[in-house]
Amino acid sequence: MIKTETISLNTKGHCDIIDITPQVEHQLAESNIDSGIVTVFVTGSTAGLTTIEYEPGLISDIKEMWQRLAPENIPYGHDRAWGDGNGHSHIRASLLGASLVVPFSHKRLALGTWQQIVLLDFDNRPRSRQLLVQIMGE
Amino acid sequence: MIKTETISLNTKGHCDIIDITPQVEHQLAESNIDSGIVTVFVTGSTAGLTTIEYEPGLISDIKEMWQRLAPENIPYGHDRAWGDGNGHSHIRASLLGASLVVPFSHKRLALGTWQQIVLLDFDNRPRSRQLLVQIMGE
Amino acid sequence: MIKTETISLNTKGHCDIIDITPQVEHQLAESNIDSGIVTVFVTGSTAGLTTIEYEPGLISDIKEMWQRLAPENIPYGHDRAWGDGNGHSHIRASLLGASLVVPFSHKRLALGTWQQIVLLDFDNRPRSRQLLVQIMGE
Repeated sequence: MIKTETISLNTKGHCDIIDITPQVEHQLAESNIDSGIVTVFVTGSTAGLTTIEYEPGLISDIKEMWQRLAPENIPYGHDRAWGDGNGHSHIRASLLGASLVVPFSHKRLALGTWQQIVLLDFDNRPRSRQLLVQIMGE
Repeated sequence: MIKTETISLNTKGHCDIIDITPQVEHQLAESNIDSGIVTVFVTGSTAGLTTIEYEPGLISDIKEMWQRLAPENIPYGHDRAWGDGNGHSHIRASLLGASLVVPFSHKRLALGTWQQIVLLDFDNRPRSRQLLVQIMGE
Repeated sequence: MIKTETISLNTKGHCDIIDITPQVEHQLAESNIDSGIVTVFVTGSTAGLTTIEYEPGLISDIKEMWQRLAPENIPYGHDRAWGDGNGHSHIRASLLGASLVVPFSHKRLALGTWQQIVLLDFDNRPRSRQLLVQIMGE
């Protein structure tokens, strides 16, 4: 059985980190599927998905990590060609990945208590984002 | 058809890298599923999953890479707030990812000969870990 | 319903980035599956998969990022042990990941217009690669 839903949300960009666990759990609760996988996918090339303990200290640590790995203030070929100034956003997203698969069993996601599903929006401006949440199972 | 199993293991933390391919293959062999995907998921926010050639040289190279990408000995907001000293563990895990999907066909995982499924435990102490292994297919 | 196919391709190695979206879309079009997930998996330990906007500026930016994260010209334990000079290729692949899951609905992948599925071949020589494309759904 497959249920495909969309989550729409507005982000601030600039490595905005948003907890989307409630929306994913809501879709799961609404489905008639007991066990299987949830695939979350963000359309676009400047955002990604992962799981973290969602607390302010880590949110700031993660932003600093991304600034070290793919700095905002170095030259990018993408920016030279297109002038939109978000080369760093693209390469960060390519490393984090647009897709996340979380298994569930008896309606419960395999997440730990301090483990949330988050969207990281690396773009250099506020964005409206579409996420696909697809639940597959039986 | 879906089969959900748990792997329990003890790690040493500190970027301990553990080959879990035998356990995953065992669960696949025990199932009645011929082709599909195996999703492995680690509960918790300080460990991750990937595939590597499991040999001592690379195990040491991977530990050094993580020390460069997210050093143990720089200040973290998480540590200032919670004092548990594992800020680096959390941000490493957020980058690697808690989820891995491996397809299989006729009971054989798509892994190469020198490609093993590994858990990386980034925490700063030994941990008991629960991994979900979910096999979905027909 | 499950359809398992193989994509074979030749790469140049050295962080060669290849757009495989047309091949994945072709397999999806040929299948009788309307909605579900496509899992792409690269066999081997020196390549990985992600999604990017496939344009020359970013291709060069991504190569530079990987040279910063896991430089070619530093010593690796893997190279000391095996002498094949591709320690950096292995650790890059362990970070990017060999697996990518993309949901689709009514025969359309959840990709954006400027978001392509790419293989990154990090090896230090040209390679023949086998990718598994597995389509699961209903």
